[in-house]
Amino acid sequence: MDTVRNAKFLVDLQPIGRRIEVDGETDLLTAAQKAGVDLVAACGGVGICGTCLVRLMSGELTPPTLTEQDLLSTAQLEQGYRLACQAFPRSSVRLEIPLESLPSAQKMQIEGEESIVQIDPAVVALDVTLSPPNLYDLRSDLTRVNQKVTSAGFSPLQSELALLDTLSHRLREQGWMARLAIRPQEGCSHLTGVFAPATPLMGLAVDIGSTKLALYLIDLEGGATLACCGVMNPQIAYGEDVISRIAFANKAPENRKLLQERLIATLNETIGDLCRQAAVRHEQIVDAVFVGNTAMHHFFCGLPVTQLGASPYVPAVSEALEVRAAELGLKTSSGAWVYLPPNIAGYVGADHTSALLATLAMSKAEKAKVLVDIGTNTEISLITCERIYSCSTASGPAFEGAHIRDGMRAAAGAIENVHLRDGRVEVVTVGGQPPVGICGTGILKAISELRQAGVIDRRGTLKRGAPGVRLENDRAEFLLVPAALTGHGRDIVITRRDVNEIQLAKGAIRAGIEICLEVAGLTVEEVEEWVIAGAFGTYLDVNSALAIGMFPPQVPKERFRQVGNAAGMGAKRMLLSRQQRLFSNEIVQRVEYIELTVYPSFTQKFVEAMYLEGEEEQAE
Amino acid sequence: MDTVRNAKFLVDLQPIGRRIEVDGETDLLTAAQKAGVDLVAACGGVGICGTCLVRLMSGELTPPTLTEQDLLSTAQLEQGYRLACQAFPRSSVRLEIPLESLPSAQKMQIEGEESIVQIDPAVVALDVTLSPPNLYDLRSDLTRVNQKVTSAGFSPLQSELALLDTLSHRLREQGWMARLAIRPQEGCSHLTGVFAPATPLMGLAVDIGSTKLALYLIDLEGGATLACCGVMNPQIAYGEDVISRIAFANKAPENRKLLQERLIATLNETIGDLCRQAAVRHEQIVDAVFVGNTAMHHFFCGLPVTQLGASPYVPAVSEALEVRAAELGLKTSSGAWVYLPPNIAGYVGADHTSALLATLAMSKAEKAKVLVDIGTNTEISLITCERIYSCSTASGPAFEGAHIRDGMRAAAGAIENVHLRDGRVEVVTVGGQPPVGICGTGILKAISELRQAGVIDRRGTLKRGAPGVRLENDRAEFLLVPAALTGHGRDIVITRRDVNEIQLAKGAIRAGIEICLEVAGLTVEEVEEWVIAGAFGTYLDVNSALAIGMFPPQVPKERFRQVGNAAGMGAKRMLLSRQQRLFSNEIVQRVEYIELTVYPSFTQKFVEAMYLEGEEEQAE
Repeated sequence: MDTVRNAKFLVDLQPIGRRIEVDGETDLLTAAQKAGVDLVAACGGVGICGTCLVRLMSGELTPPTLTEQDLLSTAQLEQGYRLACQAFPRSSVRLEIPLESLPSAQKMQIEGEESIVQIDPAVVALDVTLSPPNLYDLRSDLTRVNQKVTSAGFSPLQSELALLDTLSHRLREQGWMARLAIRPQEGCSHLTGVFAPATPLMGLAVDIGSTKLALYLIDLEGGATLACCGVMNPQIAYGEDVISRIAFANKAPENRKLLQERLIATLNETIGDLCRQAAVRHEQIVDAVFVGNTAMHHFFCGLPVTQLGASPYVPAVSEALEVRAAELGLKTSSGAWVYLPPNIAGYVGADHTSALLATLAMSKAEKAKVLVDIGTNTEISLITCERIYSCSTASGPAFEGAHIRDGMRAAAGAIENVHLRDGRVEVVTVGGQPPVGICGTGILKAISELRQAGVIDRRGTLKRGAPGVRLENDRAEFLLVPAALTGHGRDIVITRRDVNEIQLAKGAIRAGIEICLEVAGLTVEEVEEWVIAGAFGTYLDVNSALAIGMFPPQVPKERFRQVGNAAGMGAKRMLLSRQQRLFSNEIVQRVEYIELTVYPSFTQKFVEAMYLEGEEEQAE
Repeated sequence: MDTVRNAKFLVDLQPIGRRIEVDGETDLLTAAQKAGVDLVAACGGVGICGTCLVRLMSGELTPPTLTEQDLLSTAQLEQGYRLACQAFPRSSVRLEIPLESLPSAQKMQIEGEESIVQIDPAVVALDVTLSPPNLYDLRSDLTRVNQKVTSAGFSPLQSELALLDTLSHRLREQGWMARLAIRPQEGCSHLTGVFAPATPLMGLAVDIGSTKLALYLIDLEGGATLACCGVMNPQIAYGEDVISRIAFANKAPENRKLLQERLIATLNETIGDLCRQAAVRHEQIVDAVFVGNTAMHHFFCGLPVTQLGASPYVPAVSEALEVRAAELGLKTSSGAWVYLPPNIAGYVGADHTSALLATLAMSKAEKAKVLVDIGTNTEISLITCERIYSCSTASGPAFEGAHIRDGMRAAAGAIENVHLRDGRVEVVTVGGQPPVGICGTGILKAISELRQAGVIDRRGTLKRGAPGVRLENDRAEFLLVPAALTGHGRDIVITRRDVNEIQLAKGAIRAGIEICLEVAGLTVEEVEEWVIAGAFGTYLDVNSALAIGMFPPQVPKERFRQVGNAAGMGAKRMLLSRQQRLFSNEIVQRVEYIELTVYPSFTQKFVEAMYLEGEEEQAE
């Protein structure tokens, strides 16, 4: 056992993206807790409840205990599922944490696969000690400071007036010593904060999703994520998707302002929470990077959105922006700036630019790859050595459970997995609660199973008379869970219309992929990596997706890589590195945007892509 | 007469600084009106009232008419006084317009002697015509604009968010045509306004005096002053001088904010007035230059002033500042910037920098000159080819009529000239109204006359028993105007204390001059030009000033040049020329600031300088 105690194993928790080094006497539940990941462990880790489920992706663990054999099914054990409180590492391991093992608060997908970035932040600290003025040394406060600043190799400071005020006060309060946060620039540097000596400088990386805001508080010097948080976008109250929010903004001039204010208010509350978690003051936040789709970017900045709601859907601004946080009303240092990387098109925004940046950082440049960032709007990029072919498809909100009769988000009680065995339906729900609806991954899996069982044909029609299919108002529907077994006492069904929603969604994605390949002149086989990003993309069951033809059937499963919130990861990279900001601009220069609505064969490809055929289909 | 009709004569109106070319058949009243200068002409220019008084400084006029011989005294005629409605030019002429010839509204000295500047403004216009977006040209609005901007030779635009909003709207409203106001900079230019094509761009030059604000609305392309206005500084309600305002600001944190808000509010009202006068919209103001003493500069910008109220009196900021007008809340284009030239010291502010700039523009560089900008605080600079020796003296508010028993500002009824003839006192009042008090020029002249008549000795003591001197509570005072002849029915007197106030004021100025000469190692004779600036300086009677020893007695009278609001003139120059902004920074580099309070012989020199001795004294 001494070997085990002295050994150091790396435990890699995916898709959260946290890593920790532990010895062989540390169980995985403790390891996860040490890494800052709280797993559901209703019994407190004593092996009774079976809720701390993890799945071994690679590496070696101690063999399953009797407790595990008791609480887990043979199928689960075969698939590598383990109880974290029972398993100890015997090598470095990579673990998948299923959604249901995370407490609800953590279920919003805000983490992505991390990759290392050389730290070179846009804002750096300079500690200065000055001689105080006297009647023979009458230099002004700023002159006094600037002489230190320039002798440290920076251009002289230009500053927000509010910060010049703080500067004079702090110098006198702190005995003519201060830590300055400097944003170096050619010609004149910006002073972004004035602090007591040695105060750590913080940065903020934010992904503004239409549905969800993901915020990361980062130590600018070391690059560590000190706190992160995912919250709902408050604009949802004014429209589920960007189109309806643009329509709302168009109704009255004050509406756009309202959407901006609501967003900023929620961001500020969340910044407050993050700062409390990390025990820092919000004034320590001296730099920020915000990414979002073009509409969110424009709402956040207070830019006009009317033109985003009508053909030809052009952004007001596609260029990278540098905006003072004070102008936006953000709760940061009054001198902080916000960097927003460039938008690509009206429906391929700065969040995709950021996701491209993260994707390119994760794997070799020469590999051709496809990035699919799945959301209400799915952005697709085919990345080759030289060019990047990007398009956007309206995949709709079906994957988030919307427009599905019994659809719901991946909250407690949502069916997220479905097995059809000999006509019997088995379902797995989030949190193991009695089923109350079906989430995106669940509906995808259900359709894939129904298709494989022949209950649904390739057009998406439910075969009348097939097991489980019944007629309701002369329309066929499949009974997934009868009322008696549900949490709310109502049948949970899958209707023809539900199937059609999924067909539209996956068809849009598939057609986009096919057109990118066509424009680039590449075959499916030539694409060496398929990167699936976005909240839904993280929990997507690739087998189901292939089964229903969301992706070309000939893609080998091992080429898929589910990376989580790639946009957020890219934002962090840009926060920590000026080089990465420059790189984001270079990336956008490489993009050839494909406007699908004017692409000649789009309609035909879309219709073909709606058929439910995957690799299994070919065997039929 | 045909020769006269065809001749073109330049009529130069001083100290207003307006010029106009007229023929020999245009009387001076009409000429002044054409130049935009309204003279008091109670009778409407028919030669009855005698109010349109002007004084010929150089050039030739038609001989005095019988009307003039009737209405003007022989002394007035000898001194070159004429009635503008009666005189016609016979050559180009330079005229002095006495204060009383201007309607009250124009009596605030806001104009200075103009000199030509090569127009090279910091903000320029670019008219663009763009092709609208379509499905095959999806460039963002800003990209579309930037391609025009960069092909016109500018760096790409960085902009206030509010203006990016306006940009998108205006492009669509105006059929994809617009006039852009661009502030070119290395790396990225600033967009400071978006207009309909061909909209004229405006600039604002402002001198923030402790007492008075002088605002000039300037056409940035042609350089013409379209409107100007002088208003009282509303901060007067919180303290007559900067020291008492700093004390007020120190009392409570919100007080400084209040002083700033009151100032900005008055500036905004006045900007509104100027715009109405010139029939432009305030959004057309795309650039501004503000000058003021260091305290006014700091109050305006919201910088800390506490350290200006205590030794060693250092500014928070001495560097030139570029501040967004929106940050200050100024009523201009939302993208406009404000330029503030550098402050020199705690009591030699950006207004003096600006006055130095104007002074250097007015005469040859190689001439050694003294600039004296007289106010509550008087800044003195001795300018040599290489260096500029500057100091500041607390001359106090006596010249503005404060701290003088019957003192008042130069408003209607203020005694502004005094003659003692054979024991008889003759007074001239502003606007010819019955006397109600005595203004700065009046008290100076009175003391000079009393000193010459031997009523006051060189220590400032009123000789008991001299004509007009009476005892009141055992203190000697001189009866200037008995109650029966005044507008308010009370005696107007000059007390020993009044004389002492003037001695302190003139002594401070004289001592400053002497010390500058000493530090520079120059004699009085080596100084070729004595430039007197500031509101009071304009109306200063040089003879009286020499008589009481405000200036060294050996200065020949013709070396004096009274230039009016030199600070305002410098601000205009910087508004119209980027070169002048650079020059203002170079000027400050040349300044050697002399802190009088630590100058070894200051006290001795100050005491000596208080004696009432001028050149006339030597004859005694």
